[in-house]
Amino acid sequence: MSTYLDDLAVGQVYESGTVDITADGIKAFAREFDPQPFHLDEEAAKGTIFAGLAASGWYTASLTMRLLVTGNLHIAGGLVGAGVEEIRWPRPVRPGDVLHARSEVVSVRVSQSRPDRGIVQLRTTTLNQDDQAVQMMVANLVVPRRPTALLPSPDESSTA
Amino acid sequence: MSTYLDDLAVGQVYESGTVDITADGIKAFAREFDPQPFHLDEEAAKGTIFAGLAASGWYTASLTMRLLVTGNLHIAGGLVGAGVEEIRWPRPVRPGDVLHARSEVVSVRVSQSRPDRGIVQLRTTTLNQDDQAVQMMVANLVVPRRPTALLPSPDESSTA
Repeated sequence: MSTYLDDLAVGQVYESGTVDITADGIKAFAREFDPQPFHLDEEAAKGTIFAGLAASGWYTASLTMRLLVTGNLHIAGGLVGAGVEEIRWPRPVRPGDVLHARSEVVSVRVSQSRPDRGIVQLRTTTLNQDDQAVQMMVANLVVPRRPTALLPSPDESSTA
Repeated sequence: MSTYLDDLAVGQVYESGTVDITADGIKAFAREFDPQPFHLDEEAAKGTIFAGLAASGWYTASLTMRLLVTGNLHIAGGLVGAGVEEIRWPRPVRPGDVLHARSEVVSVRVSQSRPDRGIVQLRTTTLNQDDQAVQMMVANLVVPRRPTALLPSPDESSTA
């Protein structure tokens, strides 16, 4: 069941599954993408702004993408980002956290230049096991229109 | 040599090293974080909006963080993001690309609530080997003030 632009409306909410955060996962991501003491080592992290091992914000963002892709929003053609308007990380992600994502449709509009598609703005909040937000993101997705919605309607045909 | 808020000024530019993009790297990231056909498999990617294997935008963002962390901007206390104002991906990242990052200081301000630190806005453009932008990001960093800058100056002491 693919979702097209024509199926989306402001206020619709999508929920994801969950992902478990481990110290090993935080460190493995950090070694590859964000090698800083507060993401790499419990001891070294103690004296930093995070006061303990914390996930890279990019790990949280990447895991949120996985939650979206494997969640219940099945956009026709896939989840393709046109860009991000905002990301905030209001609270650190720690080992033992269990994250899930909740996405709300903020706006839906047909493209002016490409009427076979549109842009959907989605506000995705990533929450921990205590329902505290650890990330807030507003992103724009490219979403195709339903092919049948692009055909002239019978009425339009008869008056053409 | 650590950089403090007091050392940063609008217009300063920082350059990174480079990172090579491989099909294996694109696919390994996608399997973990963004499992969609256009990031996972050359053949399956052909019929998609990307018309061939392309990196997840989150892979590009995460690699850009590595380029920043290993580049020549050494913020005291580390590169700590307060948030992202914008990300755009104007062009796909493909196997064989060689990326680097160029960051420019957009604004510098002392925190009202925490005068021992401030927020630096950085515009980071990630470029491929043909100097084409593949990502543009505006991010806010938390940067400490130089401790000596927080002491009263001799003049201030004498008039106190």
